[in-house]
Amino acid sequence: MSVIALDAMGGDHAPEALVKGVCWLSRNSEGHILLVGDHDPIKAELDKHPHNPKNVSIIQAEGVIPMDAKPKVALDALPRASLPLSAQLVASGEAQAFVSAGNTGAVILSCARAFKRLPGVKRTALAAVYPTEQGHGPRGDPFSLMLDVGANIRVSAQDLIVFALMGSAYASVVSDNPSPRVALLNNGTESNKGPPELVEAHRILSGRDDLHFMGNIEGVDIPKGTADVVICDGFTGNVVLKMLEGVNETVQRLARYAYRESLSWKIALALLSRGIRELKNLTDWQQYGGAPILGFDHLCIKAHGRSSGRAISNAIRVARKAVDSGLLERIARLLENTKLES
Amino acid sequence: MSVIALDAMGGDHAPEALVKGVCWLSRNSEGHILLVGDHDPIKAELDKHPHNPKNVSIIQAEGVIPMDAKPKVALDALPRASLPLSAQLVASGEAQAFVSAGNTGAVILSCARAFKRLPGVKRTALAAVYPTEQGHGPRGDPFSLMLDVGANIRVSAQDLIVFALMGSAYASVVSDNPSPRVALLNNGTESNKGPPELVEAHRILSGRDDLHFMGNIEGVDIPKGTADVVICDGFTGNVVLKMLEGVNETVQRLARYAYRESLSWKIALALLSRGIRELKNLTDWQQYGGAPILGFDHLCIKAHGRSSGRAISNAIRVARKAVDSGLLERIARLLENTKLES
Repeated sequence: MSVIALDAMGGDHAPEALVKGVCWLSRNSEGHILLVGDHDPIKAELDKHPHNPKNVSIIQAEGVIPMDAKPKVALDALPRASLPLSAQLVASGEAQAFVSAGNTGAVILSCARAFKRLPGVKRTALAAVYPTEQGHGPRGDPFSLMLDVGANIRVSAQDLIVFALMGSAYASVVSDNPSPRVALLNNGTESNKGPPELVEAHRILSGRDDLHFMGNIEGVDIPKGTADVVICDGFTGNVVLKMLEGVNETVQRLARYAYRESLSWKIALALLSRGIRELKNLTDWQQYGGAPILGFDHLCIKAHGRSSGRAISNAIRVARKAVDSGLLERIARLLENTKLES
Repeated sequence: MSVIALDAMGGDHAPEALVKGVCWLSRNSEGHILLVGDHDPIKAELDKHPHNPKNVSIIQAEGVIPMDAKPKVALDALPRASLPLSAQLVASGEAQAFVSAGNTGAVILSCARAFKRLPGVKRTALAAVYPTEQGHGPRGDPFSLMLDVGANIRVSAQDLIVFALMGSAYASVVSDNPSPRVALLNNGTESNKGPPELVEAHRILSGRDDLHFMGNIEGVDIPKGTADVVICDGFTGNVVLKMLEGVNETVQRLARYAYRESLSWKIALALLSRGIRELKNLTDWQQYGGAPILGFDHLCIKAHGRSSGRAISNAIRVARKAVDSGLLERIARLLENTKLES
């Protein structure tokens, strides 16, 4: 049975919301969860909610990494804080994966310090799921996976190929999709489009038969969800993901404005409530369980800083699913089968 | 009085919709328009609509560049087609600017063949306006300007600075904005964020007092419209602009689906019709008059391939405004005042 370490002090609503989510999960699923952080406030929260004590234990940490701290400075000062200690528990084998809603830079740096990169991986990637119009996989999951979304500003063709293999393996696990469609995000669909690293990655990926490479996609395909897995450098991924967030915020502000505007609009929005609920559901990142950091020999799921209990329990479930399905072995095998060109 | 050359054969609805737009414009404003293309079909369209013959003339061209042709091949085969001939009429002084809704690559290449780059410009830029939540300039125009959106995949710090100066000059003309806020699109707001060319451009732009540089913005600021002018490389600009198009298409498909879905939704959408009209108006690219190509010693406005008569008449009006306000002289002066670092 899997053991997942949770950085119980990381995130805007830690530890309260996180512990509450863990309590619920402990009664509704099997698997152990290590709550890493300050014992007393965690224990106080545990006592408030019904939970299965066999599935939960507390690991005392020394300090908390602030959400807006400089990662290196903070980790050097607090090497046994809840965040790095969670990573260390995974490295030492006491847990199989860790989940954190804390400082993103510190999460990535903690992984880099505690874990090793898998053979063949020069750059690790932060992946994220985002809502799409089309469904994905046999369940019709309403989201695509995109990587890299922030860890690497500029990448090589080989990095892009590694991202494609890792993303394909991850999507096949989380969406139960035996053959996810993988695409390169480019400024045109033709194979010769884009900067040299994209042209080269396109050429090499086109020749592989161990993943479903569909070629280049353009910006217009991002919200549509033409691909299950979208591959790009971290600069582009960061801009795209934050832009989706901005579009969502703008639509919500316009809707609130419309609601205040007139009686007929109030009635209209009431009549539309089911549709708006469905749309809200579609764009609700909390159900997607966070962003995996891929390329290390151990697994980390980075949950959103604003994570509620439900978001954290979904992140833990995704981590368990990845562990149980042997995600890292699958990625290692794909990379091993690869004669990566240097 | 300005003379604008219109590639009357370029675009999905050429020449019918274009000539119709020109007829309307000829009766409602001053300034001459050269309709460049096949005489007979253009004349036939002219005869259908009331127009002021003093403001319109037809220039016979030899052939039409297809919308999906390879630019170089097509222009080599048809050097006097309506599109390149329009550029040549500007270069020879018979017109002051040209407008085309034709093949984008061929428009840019025609400019490169007929025009010279302004001193200090290594790379020219394609700029585009896109709808934003916040208004811009004294009229509160609901759009921002973004450049480059496709001409250059990778750029240097100097290119970004030139784009910033040209974009600032263009926005000040079209939005009557004496001091447009100019920002670099980056993966974080701090000055040291992003690839080296962005860090360097940030440093140099921060030291200039002839433009209103507001620093870095992130993806979330794009739909909000935090900046009046957004500067980026052509790869990022292409992805962002096409993504906005994709978001718009997705929302429209969801709305059509909702309309078919149930009676209560039909009523709701009827009640919301004014709001939807306003939103449609806000995201209606046709009123924005097309995308300028900046950095040459002559001006070209690239209109959307799907341009209607109204879109074309707006593009011609923007071209006139740029000519009348001395846009190119203003850009040349900004570049001259610049000790550009090599």
